[in-house]
Amino acid sequence: MKILCLNCGSSSVKYSLFDWQAKTPLASGVVERIGIGGSLISHEASGREKVVVKQDCPGHKEAITLILTTLTDGASGVIDGLSGISAVGHRVVHGGERFVKSVIIDDNILDTFRELSSLAPLHNPPNIQGIEAARELMPGIPHMAIMDTAWHQTMPPSSYTYALPRKWYWKYGIRRYGFHGTSFLYVAKRAAVLLKKDPFKTNLVICHIGNGASINAVKNGLSYDTSMGFTPLEGLVMGTRSGDHDPAIPLYVMAREYMSPGEMDAVLNKKSGILGITEQYTDRRDVEVAAAHGDERARLAIAIETYRIKKYIGAYAAAVGGIDAVVFTAGVGELGSITRAGALEDLDFLGIKCDAEKNDISRTRNAETDISAKTARVKALVIPTDEERVFVEDVAGLMNGKYDIHTRFTYTFQDPEYRNKLRDDAFARQCADKPALLTVEANPPAGAMAGPPQKQRPPGGQAKKSP
Amino acid sequence: MKILCLNCGSSSVKYSLFDWQAKTPLASGVVERIGIGGSLISHEASGREKVVVKQDCPGHKEAITLILTTLTDGASGVIDGLSGISAVGHRVVHGGERFVKSVIIDDNILDTFRELSSLAPLHNPPNIQGIEAARELMPGIPHMAIMDTAWHQTMPPSSYTYALPRKWYWKYGIRRYGFHGTSFLYVAKRAAVLLKKDPFKTNLVICHIGNGASINAVKNGLSYDTSMGFTPLEGLVMGTRSGDHDPAIPLYVMAREYMSPGEMDAVLNKKSGILGITEQYTDRRDVEVAAAHGDERARLAIAIETYRIKKYIGAYAAAVGGIDAVVFTAGVGELGSITRAGALEDLDFLGIKCDAEKNDISRTRNAETDISAKTARVKALVIPTDEERVFVEDVAGLMNGKYDIHTRFTYTFQDPEYRNKLRDDAFARQCADKPALLTVEANPPAGAMAGPPQKQRPPGGQAKKSP
Repeated sequence: MKILCLNCGSSSVKYSLFDWQAKTPLASGVVERIGIGGSLISHEASGREKVVVKQDCPGHKEAITLILTTLTDGASGVIDGLSGISAVGHRVVHGGERFVKSVIIDDNILDTFRELSSLAPLHNPPNIQGIEAARELMPGIPHMAIMDTAWHQTMPPSSYTYALPRKWYWKYGIRRYGFHGTSFLYVAKRAAVLLKKDPFKTNLVICHIGNGASINAVKNGLSYDTSMGFTPLEGLVMGTRSGDHDPAIPLYVMAREYMSPGEMDAVLNKKSGILGITEQYTDRRDVEVAAAHGDERARLAIAIETYRIKKYIGAYAAAVGGIDAVVFTAGVGELGSITRAGALEDLDFLGIKCDAEKNDISRTRNAETDISAKTARVKALVIPTDEERVFVEDVAGLMNGKYDIHTRFTYTFQDPEYRNKLRDDAFARQCADKPALLTVEANPPAGAMAGPPQKQRPPGGQAKKSP
Repeated sequence: MKILCLNCGSSSVKYSLFDWQAKTPLASGVVERIGIGGSLISHEASGREKVVVKQDCPGHKEAITLILTTLTDGASGVIDGLSGISAVGHRVVHGGERFVKSVIIDDNILDTFRELSSLAPLHNPPNIQGIEAARELMPGIPHMAIMDTAWHQTMPPSSYTYALPRKWYWKYGIRRYGFHGTSFLYVAKRAAVLLKKDPFKTNLVICHIGNGASINAVKNGLSYDTSMGFTPLEGLVMGTRSGDHDPAIPLYVMAREYMSPGEMDAVLNKKSGILGITEQYTDRRDVEVAAAHGDERARLAIAIETYRIKKYIGAYAAAVGGIDAVVFTAGVGELGSITRAGALEDLDFLGIKCDAEKNDISRTRNAETDISAKTARVKALVIPTDEERVFVEDVAGLMNGKYDIHTRFTYTFQDPEYRNKLRDDAFARQCADKPALLTVEANPPAGAMAGPPQKQRPPGGQAKKSP
């Protein structure tokens, strides 16, 4: 059984094809510049050279057609024909309050997503266009929706209710929804495995730090609170998003600069965050280089970003009454040792202590690492996220009728023998002479690192799309 | 030397007259409904019946004239004439970045306050009107300004800088300023005394919870971060203010309801918070009664408010690397045992543990109490605030040339022998049979409570004016 995962943005479609029986990704890639001219597909099949093909794609239908052609093409392809695809999993950013788990898409479900578009005007419409096009092109197979918000539907009202006029909730659905749910689900389950704990007796703070960033308080294995709210603007400092600030400020500036709500929303989402502070950078790697060369604004950006993460770690540890581990994931979370070090500094009183050497060496998207000092009571872990894996498992579970809400469903990656990302060459070489540095007990590094690297994943960085 | 303190709001002037040598308040009161018809003065002199006099006050000058007449009147007065007043201390809400301590007002200083009016359009203009009127009515004596923001000027840039376009800082002065500084200064100094610690080696989280509410992280005796920001809107849930929320929400609603920035600002400041959630209450006492009778919204309001305080305690404990004590002050902080209990619940992992009985009994504005359990590593204290005392000491210090920034100035209330508020009858009676419940070691309750009550302060409640 082969499962196609699609993630449709306004001008891009990311895809991956997964062989369920072999538990192996066959190919993945992205079509970019849809509808804006100069479209191209970047396609990578397992064990083969990357292929880039330019082809005009005025809409999502043409983009998905291009993906299907590439997947079945004699030279680049990995399957003989469309009949090789058994099901499609679609990413849907906003499931509102109605969806607590992934679902098989029918016309009613699609209508519900259309109704929810006002809650996610940037994300849901392209998600829907992608579903419509894919159902038309692959009509005979089931299409499933995996939502960013579903994981967070366990939050209690005290976490999701804003102290705003109550009528806004009834009229506009204004409450905290949270995003990055698929990533948090994966990381929470993996963390419990690494901690050798029952996932429903595990308390965590998970920091998903990419270009978009959010943080999740997990209490007894369930999402209890999260920093993104009604929209992905709230919470941490991001590449171009402000995160938290006095909500009177935008109103103050709007009144003085005669800006519309839409114009201000664009400034807060696209001209703020790291870019607002530094006035030139969004990528944390650029910021780190500039800071190392003495750029004061870059240093301030790092100080603000790490300080904000630290405050959320403290807040969410308090929210759930203490934690077993703080976990970092996503581009910056997996690669950004400076960000992690700053966020964990001076948290000894919480039992959190980062080992500087372990943290420094742990810059990979392909290994689960424990960066805590030996004396730490609370573990600090780095767990590369794998949202596609959740997509695939949800789709397979829905196909075979075994899928249910995550409290009644066990993922294959919860098996103690499961190996997250396979360790890449560079990382294995780097650690070869000091394996003791990186010990996640449930995932012993000695064997894993001694074995031949089976898949090399590109270093990736933080070019993760919003949220 | 007698010192008059004035706190001028848009339609009210609060005042108190203090005898510096005797260290005793002589009289206090408030003129209300200035400029809106039906003005009246409520005046209370030490040991005498409260007096209420109706007299029309079209402006602050008439209101201050009324205060001075009442203070010198044969029947209600406590001084023979204006010559009895040696100096006036004025509350100024916003001192911007220029003032790190209290100052003697001259024309230049007054010009600076005028320049800062755009930062505090509701607060600074009436403060300035009051200063102008008082200087005209009492021209021969020094007038001083005590600012809510000065205490917070020790915050580092990582605490006060928002991840917003940098140019807004240069153009509009947009940064975190923080408020309630006079209260935090008093409470921080008192907490160090009660903990028997060097104030500059003391880390605290101080919760100033009144109708307006903010919270302060104190690191080594200095303000390190605070929840109110550019304006008093940010942070905790308040009586009618929203506190923190996704800043995209107001923009979303404005676009749909065609609201102006000013209209939205009014909703967030006056129709949100506890009022927004319950749709009927602002006073926490009403909320508690309703919750006890099964009102679900009132219960939710309590849950949200206490949860938000708890998150800030965790965040700020992390910000300063661990704390010696969490301190509650102001109306709700001093009287609201339900709020305190909720905020401190399940924080054992931080070493914080509230003793239910001590907390329940500690409902007074006249005693410093320790509500922590014996096993707590981090103290939980209730310290009635006394902003007037700081005003008076700053004014006296400026008069005698000994005043300086608080890091180089010692207040008389830092003396271990100093007794904060004198314990009132009701509280003393309540504790009489179980003095062990309330033990602040530096301020032994047995003796203090055994002694005759010297001043009874009205229970007050939380009708504290903004911020």
